[in-house]
Amino acid sequence: MPSPADKTNLSDANDVGKVEEKTFVYKDNFSLTGGGTLAGFELRYEYYGQLNAQRDNAIYICHALTGDHHVAGFYNHDDEKPGWWNHVVGPGKPIDTNRFFVVSSNCLGGCRGSTGPSSEDPKSKGTSYGANFPDLSICDMIRAKRALIDHLGISTLHAVVGGSMGGMQTLQWIVEYPGFVKNAIIIAATAQHSVQTIAFNEAGRCSIRGDLGWKDGSYEKNEGPAQGLSVARMMAHITYLSDLGMEEKFGGDQRLDSSEDFEFSVQGYLDHQGKKFVDRFDANSYLKLTEALDRFNLVGEHGLANAVANVDTRTLVIAFSSDWLYTPKQNKDIADALIKAGKNASYLEIDHSHGHDSFLIDSGPFLKALGSFLQGEDTTTEQALEEDGFRKLKNRYEVKKEADFRAIDDWVAPKDKVLDLGCGRGLLLEHLREAKDVHGLGVDWELNKSISCISRKVPIYQEEILAALSKFSDNSFDWVIFSRMVESLPEPGKIIEQAIRVGHKVAVSFVNHGYWRNRWNFLFKGRRVCNEVYPHQWESSHLSNHFSISEFEDFSKRLHANGMQVNLGRKLFYRGDWVNKCSFLPNLRAGLAIYEIVKGS
Amino acid sequence: MPSPADKTNLSDANDVGKVEEKTFVYKDNFSLTGGGTLAGFELRYEYYGQLNAQRDNAIYICHALTGDHHVAGFYNHDDEKPGWWNHVVGPGKPIDTNRFFVVSSNCLGGCRGSTGPSSEDPKSKGTSYGANFPDLSICDMIRAKRALIDHLGISTLHAVVGGSMGGMQTLQWIVEYPGFVKNAIIIAATAQHSVQTIAFNEAGRCSIRGDLGWKDGSYEKNEGPAQGLSVARMMAHITYLSDLGMEEKFGGDQRLDSSEDFEFSVQGYLDHQGKKFVDRFDANSYLKLTEALDRFNLVGEHGLANAVANVDTRTLVIAFSSDWLYTPKQNKDIADALIKAGKNASYLEIDHSHGHDSFLIDSGPFLKALGSFLQGEDTTTEQALEEDGFRKLKNRYEVKKEADFRAIDDWVAPKDKVLDLGCGRGLLLEHLREAKDVHGLGVDWELNKSISCISRKVPIYQEEILAALSKFSDNSFDWVIFSRMVESLPEPGKIIEQAIRVGHKVAVSFVNHGYWRNRWNFLFKGRRVCNEVYPHQWESSHLSNHFSISEFEDFSKRLHANGMQVNLGRKLFYRGDWVNKCSFLPNLRAGLAIYEIVKGS
Repeated sequence: MPSPADKTNLSDANDVGKVEEKTFVYKDNFSLTGGGTLAGFELRYEYYGQLNAQRDNAIYICHALTGDHHVAGFYNHDDEKPGWWNHVVGPGKPIDTNRFFVVSSNCLGGCRGSTGPSSEDPKSKGTSYGANFPDLSICDMIRAKRALIDHLGISTLHAVVGGSMGGMQTLQWIVEYPGFVKNAIIIAATAQHSVQTIAFNEAGRCSIRGDLGWKDGSYEKNEGPAQGLSVARMMAHITYLSDLGMEEKFGGDQRLDSSEDFEFSVQGYLDHQGKKFVDRFDANSYLKLTEALDRFNLVGEHGLANAVANVDTRTLVIAFSSDWLYTPKQNKDIADALIKAGKNASYLEIDHSHGHDSFLIDSGPFLKALGSFLQGEDTTTEQALEEDGFRKLKNRYEVKKEADFRAIDDWVAPKDKVLDLGCGRGLLLEHLREAKDVHGLGVDWELNKSISCISRKVPIYQEEILAALSKFSDNSFDWVIFSRMVESLPEPGKIIEQAIRVGHKVAVSFVNHGYWRNRWNFLFKGRRVCNEVYPHQWESSHLSNHFSISEFEDFSKRLHANGMQVNLGRKLFYRGDWVNKCSFLPNLRAGLAIYEIVKGS
Repeated sequence: MPSPADKTNLSDANDVGKVEEKTFVYKDNFSLTGGGTLAGFELRYEYYGQLNAQRDNAIYICHALTGDHHVAGFYNHDDEKPGWWNHVVGPGKPIDTNRFFVVSSNCLGGCRGSTGPSSEDPKSKGTSYGANFPDLSICDMIRAKRALIDHLGISTLHAVVGGSMGGMQTLQWIVEYPGFVKNAIIIAATAQHSVQTIAFNEAGRCSIRGDLGWKDGSYEKNEGPAQGLSVARMMAHITYLSDLGMEEKFGGDQRLDSSEDFEFSVQGYLDHQGKKFVDRFDANSYLKLTEALDRFNLVGEHGLANAVANVDTRTLVIAFSSDWLYTPKQNKDIADALIKAGKNASYLEIDHSHGHDSFLIDSGPFLKALGSFLQGEDTTTEQALEEDGFRKLKNRYEVKKEADFRAIDDWVAPKDKVLDLGCGRGLLLEHLREAKDVHGLGVDWELNKSISCISRKVPIYQEEILAALSKFSDNSFDWVIFSRMVESLPEPGKIIEQAIRVGHKVAVSFVNHGYWRNRWNFLFKGRRVCNEVYPHQWESSHLSNHFSISEFEDFSKRLHANGMQVNLGRKLFYRGDWVNKCSFLPNLRAGLAIYEIVKGS
């Protein structure tokens, strides 16, 4: 959509180097979803890297509304800037051109070389389509891209990746061609424009159409509605940035403009953005493309989960915290629907202050997420592991993990669907996948841990536990596992009830607070234990909700009394070492407990 | 700013009824802050209610950008709508015309009867000022209003109230005329436009100035830049609403327009808003007023606290959770500065989904806040009291409150400045004010409780404890009091350290978790106590951080060891009944403890 990333050193050895534009010519009639037909079309495209012998290493990159096919590298040595995603695509980069054959095309309806309103209308000699260009949809753009991929002799795509409108196209790719795309990364996108977004687009279109220069769309080249297009761009540009991002760039000491042309520096910036846009973009293209975006609606009457029912693609959805154009909620809705429909889908939310445009910015966690998903390498550094609170308890934690692994591995059946709440770096689900071929989904709210899951190919939903549980359908998992965090949940009863709703069986593993050493300590000292297991003094503790085996058993009885048809199933108690089992007086003698809750009549 | 509230029944007995516009004529030269001069001006105004004999019951209402002086009542029986705040102003309403004399005027620079760009320029015979109207500021508007108030023979205002631009004017009132205004309510406002807001305004102005009909501002009446003004209005209107509010109104089943004119219903709505606005507003006024807003900046180089140093007004700032034009943060900044400068200021944040326009909507909590502040009546219903979790423990809580009252009343000196963290309904601060004439400020994050404080004339800052503490200057209070919530704070040590930074002395009152009954219960049952004091079973507990006298004393030793110059001062221990004192083995025998922490070298 917006302006490319900061200028990169063109002589960078990791660059794809000098690249060339190609043109794909489709000569047949091409029917559009809106009812119109094009007598053929052209797509301007570029590629980087080598197509392998199996022709299965291609990645298609879809650009945003006002972006184009020039993703990486440069055309000439004196280019001011490289392609708009040069920091993402190249040798050794997250989208690694040493491994992948990367293709991108200017979308149908665009104005950067592909057929669009400014192209010559074959029916009229010498004049462009203008406003006569037929109504266009995101689906039409994908079908045209598919024609290019067929032309290149590629029968399956390793991945499709795109942000903003490119993310919507990526979603449309996997819906339109089930199984054709092995992996998809949908970034800062939506399955349906919000009313607010339609409203902003409409104000922009009114600005263009109200400009006398528009002439009902039949303006001459270089004589279009410059004023109207410029205002539309200014306004839209604000929606690509965040309040905070604008404040950082044009607030404080930079608030007032140093020139005499403007009072505030942001005025000069917007003026520049507007003028630059008029030079590089066609007003009719802008109208047609924003209409296609407003109309894009995979939610429809039957819901998004229904629309994605046939998807057969491993998918990652990435949102940015400060994106208020296509909000985290809208992106999460896409992941929700895929998960609801039983697909392999992950959701990450990256904390970034640059608003919608964050996907264009060179930022570590984002690049790591892309690379981990496409290449499956755990790039987690030792430092990141240190940040994991459990690292401090390394031995204890490893011991508990071992105990959980053994019990849950024993209980879970091959090919079960398993939801791991508070899954951390995804080790349990990775283990269950290797050992039992389970279909796992992890939930954790920490980005670093979630990216680790991605690198292990463990699907991850980055969210708070209760919010995540509320999204899942009844009985949609065989197992729901609380492996290490029940004591950090407020009103845990409600959350466990949700888990019972979502899963057929629930496994709860917890440190028994009724263990005799805790009682002893409290009796004689009147204070909490402070040791490896409970590492913090009162004043530096997070809030918690420790509980004992007795309390848990009483709770399960109350569940029953409240009419829930659940029973405690298998139980495992470990002594204070968390290694040796114990069965006599567990509430006093056990340090660790693992329970199975079984739903039944 | 935006459209008036929903149509009200004009025959409502609580209405101010039929009202008349008046015109105030100021005949002298009037110098403007931007350097220009007006050879006199007129203000169109209205009033409701009776000015009392002391002439001290007047309330001035300031309207928003595109609002006007017609606040309440109607001009004719066939008026389609009453004044824009008819649900707020009237007999028995929050701004009660039975008690107050309510005045409002169209602002200088406006186009609803007061002198503005569309008024005749006395220097040119018969033509309007147009773009020659001098640059205007919010301060100029206030000075013109002050001239009207002087003309009406009013020497002190009981209150000034305003939302949006009206809120900025209200802030300017109390800064410009210290002591003249006894009470002020600043609603959905800011002390400085964000860069994002300037950017939106600038896009709107470009739309107007770029319209050929603008003619450098010298258009004839009814021949202005209709298209440009309409687009500016559409865009601005989006910023007055919230994403969620638009979705509720124009999303879901209402998404598509039923007419043939538009595809989406929001398009029709925006089109209507744009056209209606062109009929009622002057483009040059819009330019001048938005420029005045963009330039309004009480933060400046020396900060807002400095700008409000001379304020002598009891002030309430109200923000709405979904307002993204003038955000809660921007409103809070105003309250922060007033508090920092030692003023009597309160801050409320009302959870409302209608965005910036929430202040125009008839909503219970908002009206209650206005009425409580202006009339000082506690309108808290029994139901609201029931919602107070402590109500369940009525007896216990009353007992603890009694103990706290006695201790703190004993410790606090007359006229001390006291900060009460988690102040609830403000009873302690009300008591200390009555008993010791203390200057109190309460902090609580619950709106209902905060409004109760307002009605007791206890200044309240509605915010989370740690966020609130971080705003206050070092040593800005004589006492900081934790009366009933330390155990609900994560990492309480950090928070207590902040309290020590902010206050000279800190009082901490807490339930001793080391009390023998708790130990006994845990020893024999291995589970938490569940009684009046600890009312919840494990599964329905919120997270907590209970602690004992020993733990608290150890913490204070560690503070000392970490180099903080603090000592424990007076201590009070109560037995299990929280009434009788005890001193022997308090960690075992005391149910309640109250500590004084004293800062010293």
